Amino acid sequence: MPLEIQLKAYADAVNARLDQLLPPLDATPTELHEAMRYSCLAPGKRLRPALCMASAKAAGGSAESVLDAACAIEMVHCFSLIHDDLPAIDDDDLRRGLPTCHKRFGEAIAILAGDALFSLAFEVLSHSPSTPNPQSSVLGPVLRSVQVLTKATGSDGLVGGEVVDVLSEGVAVDVERLKFIHSRKTGALMAAACRIGAILAGGTDEQVSNLGQFGLALGLAFQIADDILNETADPITIGKAVGTDRDRSKATYTSLFDLKESRRLAEDAAMAAKRALAGLGDKAFLSQLADFAVRRAR
Amino acid sequence: MPLEIQLKAYADAVNARLDQLLPPLDATPTELHEAMRYSCLAPGKRLRPALCMASAKAAGGSAESVLDAACAIEMVHCFSLIHDDLPAIDDDDLRRGLPTCHKRFGEAIAILAGDALFSLAFEVLSHSPSTPNPQSSVLGPVLRSVQVLTKATGSDGLVGGEVVDVLSEGVAVDVERLKFIHSRKTGALMAAACRIGAILAGGTDEQVSNLGQFGLALGLAFQIADDILNETADPITIGKAVGTDRDRSKATYTSLFDLKESRRLAEDAAMAAKRALAGLGDKAFLSQLADFAVRRAR
Repeated sequence: MPLEIQLKAYADAVNARLDQLLPPLDATPTELHEAMRYSCLAPGKRLRPALCMASAKAAGGSAESVLDAACAIEMVHCFSLIHDDLPAIDDDDLRRGLPTCHKRFGEAIAILAGDALFSLAFEVLSHSPSTPNPQSSVLGPVLRSVQVLTKATGSDGLVGGEVVDVLSEGVAVDVERLKFIHSRKTGALMAAACRIGAILAGGTDEQVSNLGQFGLALGLAFQIADDILNETADPITIGKAVGTDRDRSKATYTSLFDLKESRRLAEDAAMAAKRALAGLGDKAFLSQLADFAVRRAR
Repeated sequence: MPLEIQLKAYADAVNARLDQLLPPLDATPTELHEAMRYSCLAPGKRLRPALCMASAKAAGGSAESVLDAACAIEMVHCFSLIHDDLPAIDDDDLRRGLPTCHKRFGEAIAILAGDALFSLAFEVLSHSPSTPNPQSSVLGPVLRSVQVLTKATGSDGLVGGEVVDVLSEGVAVDVERLKFIHSRKTGALMAAACRIGAILAGGTDEQVSNLGQFGLALGLAFQIADDILNETADPITIGKAVGTDRDRSKATYTSLFDLKESRRLAEDAAMAAKRALAGLGDKAFLSQLADFAVRRAR
């Protein structure tokens, strides 16, 4: 199946399920629920949920069985976008082609909508169905997934990466620091999405580990490509402002390397991602995704 | 043992363990870790961790066995204080006798330190030791605790209560709405602390439920007493500014009822809390705590 069709099929399933899992508009506090739904149902590729679902397949399970976990991953992603967009952090006005959460609902509701989505992500994940693997960890797969998600989001994951990114604005950043930021801001959650998909589908420890490596490398490929796009793309196409990283002296690959070298590094990361898939089962989608990551920025 | 001595003993154990569980100051990003430690190790009664530990005892287990879970509860409490104090929400300058997190570290780091503490809370809880109860839920006690904490913190818990509180500033609030706010802002996490202590200590479903009822009623008693103290106390004694609720037209018991009636409602809540303890084991501390909640505001 062509990548775009499969990605759209995953996204449709995720959007329909997110609509059920998010709190209803007619319950108190409606303003909070509206903000959560606004940010979480805004158009997007649903890349992280797709990684979770495709990893379940690659580990020998079914994509549908990890749909709730996939939605939990998307909630975490939305939480981080809402908070990163805040005036005190990146101060962005546009996200996914729409006004950012705080532009639409005010800062207080945006902060709290992010918090509530983060909590809901753990709630949904902790109630997720699962397929235990007797050869694997002694821990139940759901609890193990919760542990993976906490590690990916905390001070040594998503949030830690964002802090170093914020502190690096206007500062000379070397490639080591850039890797620190990217592996946490983008890689950590993508790797967690892959690992959680594999864990909940009953994958072996080796499958879980390989898919985690894939997610980390894929995250790097996407991040370098995003840095390139932030320099070169049309704002309508990518649904957000461009040139903003440079305006803000943000640490990016394109500030350290020229476009040609940045593209080569993205290709290297995509190749590393594909190598990590050796030995896995149904991997066509994941492999195509690695190509897609860098194709966008060519 | 007198209440203050036991409370201090729990707090000492919690503070020592928090110091171990919080990320070290010499690891990147140091600014984030410093902010997390600053807010989470600031002086406080450690009431919620004490509730968790005392509930483990009341359910027939040991207080020490749930120390990590108690620390996780305190981390959630600190996360909510940091975010509630932000300029966009309550705009408070002083907390626990110290400048608030954003006053000390700036808004960006404060928002992200709150997020990282929230994530760390789930990380610590999901790695917590536990004592299964074969007569209880089919779910493992740790996963069940995670589920309880998610419910207590999300859009129908802590965060939802804060949203309704924010939206009620300057608006005429009836007693139903006030109860909605208080049961979620204060009651939900206290009830979760009690339930999680009982669950992890191997308590029966009935013990867990009764301790949850206790925590909810105790939370109400504390909140009414806090409303009274915000009107009447010495700012040095309570470590934060007073009269701020009135200045801000915040929804409080003292805005709906006079001081005498507010005190009576606090006493009622404390009585209800003590009634929920009937049939539980080692409950002296919890019972004394219910008295302490209202004694402060007499």
